[in-house]
Amino acid sequence: MRNDKLTPAQLMGFREQIKVLDATVRDGGLVNSFRFTDEFVRDLYKTNIKAGVDYMELGYKADKTMFNEDDFGKWKFCNEDDIRDIVGDNDTDLKLSIMADVGRCDYKNDIIDRANSAIDMIRVATYVTTMPAAIDMIEDAAKKGYETTCNIMAVSNAQESDLDIALDMLGKSCVNGVYIVDSFGSLVPEQIKRISNKYLDMADKYGKQIGIHAHNNQQLAFANTIEALSEGVNLIDATYDGMGRGAGNCAMELLLGFLKNPKYKLFPVVKFIEQHMNKLREDGVLWGYGIPYMITGQFNQHPREAIAYTEQHKKDYSEFYKHILDMNS
Amino acid sequence: MRNDKLTPAQLMGFREQIKVLDATVRDGGLVNSFRFTDEFVRDLYKTNIKAGVDYMELGYKADKTMFNEDDFGKWKFCNEDDIRDIVGDNDTDLKLSIMADVGRCDYKNDIIDRANSAIDMIRVATYVTTMPAAIDMIEDAAKKGYETTCNIMAVSNAQESDLDIALDMLGKSCVNGVYIVDSFGSLVPEQIKRISNKYLDMADKYGKQIGIHAHNNQQLAFANTIEALSEGVNLIDATYDGMGRGAGNCAMELLLGFLKNPKYKLFPVVKFIEQHMNKLREDGVLWGYGIPYMITGQFNQHPREAIAYTEQHKKDYSEFYKHILDMNS
Repeated sequence: MRNDKLTPAQLMGFREQIKVLDATVRDGGLVNSFRFTDEFVRDLYKTNIKAGVDYMELGYKADKTMFNEDDFGKWKFCNEDDIRDIVGDNDTDLKLSIMADVGRCDYKNDIIDRANSAIDMIRVATYVTTMPAAIDMIEDAAKKGYETTCNIMAVSNAQESDLDIALDMLGKSCVNGVYIVDSFGSLVPEQIKRISNKYLDMADKYGKQIGIHAHNNQQLAFANTIEALSEGVNLIDATYDGMGRGAGNCAMELLLGFLKNPKYKLFPVVKFIEQHMNKLREDGVLWGYGIPYMITGQFNQHPREAIAYTEQHKKDYSEFYKHILDMNS
Repeated sequence: MRNDKLTPAQLMGFREQIKVLDATVRDGGLVNSFRFTDEFVRDLYKTNIKAGVDYMELGYKADKTMFNEDDFGKWKFCNEDDIRDIVGDNDTDLKLSIMADVGRCDYKNDIIDRANSAIDMIRVATYVTTMPAAIDMIEDAAKKGYETTCNIMAVSNAQESDLDIALDMLGKSCVNGVYIVDSFGSLVPEQIKRISNKYLDMADKYGKQIGIHAHNNQQLAFANTIEALSEGVNLIDATYDGMGRGAGNCAMELLLGFLKNPKYKLFPVVKFIEQHMNKLREDGVLWGYGIPYMITGQFNQHPREAIAYTEQHKKDYSEFYKHILDMNS
């Protein structure tokens, strides 16, 4: 499973085990309250199939007793009927996933058996401190027949000793994959390399796959993704036009332009961006690199302050810098 | 001179030999025909001093018999009087450079002795195929008392065997530094690593410094710069807000946020961006990452097609993709 640093020959070739997951609706949904049109989601589904993408994440499985359905688009809840409206029985090579957050998902009731669902994989999102709850969700999903992953958020803020214990717990669980999640976009490639090797040590020991989900606060989402790939990380998150919370994610178009597996096709991705992503931006949906996100990324903190600032269309960056400096003192 | 791959301790520390060069007026000038206000250039000069930047490049030394002075701002020509208006005798720690292009500079006449100039360094820009002309310019500048560098453009299109010969010629010359220039923004960190090591082999043999000038077509300008730094490259180009031709350059604010030498200060850079760079964008000056630049970068070709396309404010990316595909077949 582990590969050494890419040699020139490996850089020219490709690794079959790499799987690309499109998280546009799920992470992108965080910036438009999941209010995508059916046309958008259907075209994205068709585009992912044409582009050779391996997984498409349709959204969250949020607890309806905690979140009001009127306050969000349907992809925060991913009702089976809504999924079927888009994908039918999904008789394609594209697998489908949903994300379930620790503490925000009534998984025992709301996640049905895989035999009755179009969904193939459940991705459990957790902080390192809530690992037992995450593992309970993972075991529940696995028993129901799903592939499972654990996405350990905010890894840049986790104590490394805690992370070691959490990784060992996951190693001993039935989870299939574990993701490095740089929620704050604060990590640089050298750190991604070190963290990747920590995760891959666990993966080697227990027979798991490792994934990466990067944010673009320092224009490093793509670079950090390449770095992880080079070390042997195989499960790769990306979004169209980098759409995602705050500074956004690793852009699908950059990733597919880099990967050499001939099954991946860039043209349909470019076409989709032309047809749909520009429209979202024109409608006022905000995401992508900017100075405020750079600042929260450099300070290794949650982007919420930068999001609020950006939504106000403010440009007094030096005041924002001082504000974040004050928050950290 | 050569450092091995950064260890965690090296990542936390810093390397004294690293020198940051601000190329905003020079590379940024390519997108506004060098029409910066004096206030902009003066504030940038003061900001570079406050930020601890090591060099500031003021523009080109273009041949006035080839280029009409009315068609460009003054920083395409860098008259000594214009420089003195901004910097006086430059009694500061900030060194000043200008760029001289092979074939576009009447260097024997237009570059005066350093003793009579505020300029400290001449950077000679060349393709790998015009190395004898570049070396003649370098020897001329060195004789006049300047520090000198050679910036080998479009390295991604150079034959590696030609590059080896060119590097050896430079090694035997009196040049102080040699830059890796990814003019098309087509290189990924693994390639930068390989190229850095080729240049550093020459540097070790002949006692030179190596530099990097990256473009952001694939959102990799900062990442490629970090990669080169990690390998032992010490001369680093950056521009405020990434301003530069096409997709722009490595952003100064990202770079100074990354470098750990306490002499570098981020706050004045953020302040300058707030006060000046947003205004340039509002005035219609175009630079920065976009899908057309990604496409020319991935195809390893000059960004001129993407620049023309972007200036027309077109968004039919799939047509542009096919156009570039056709050009390459």
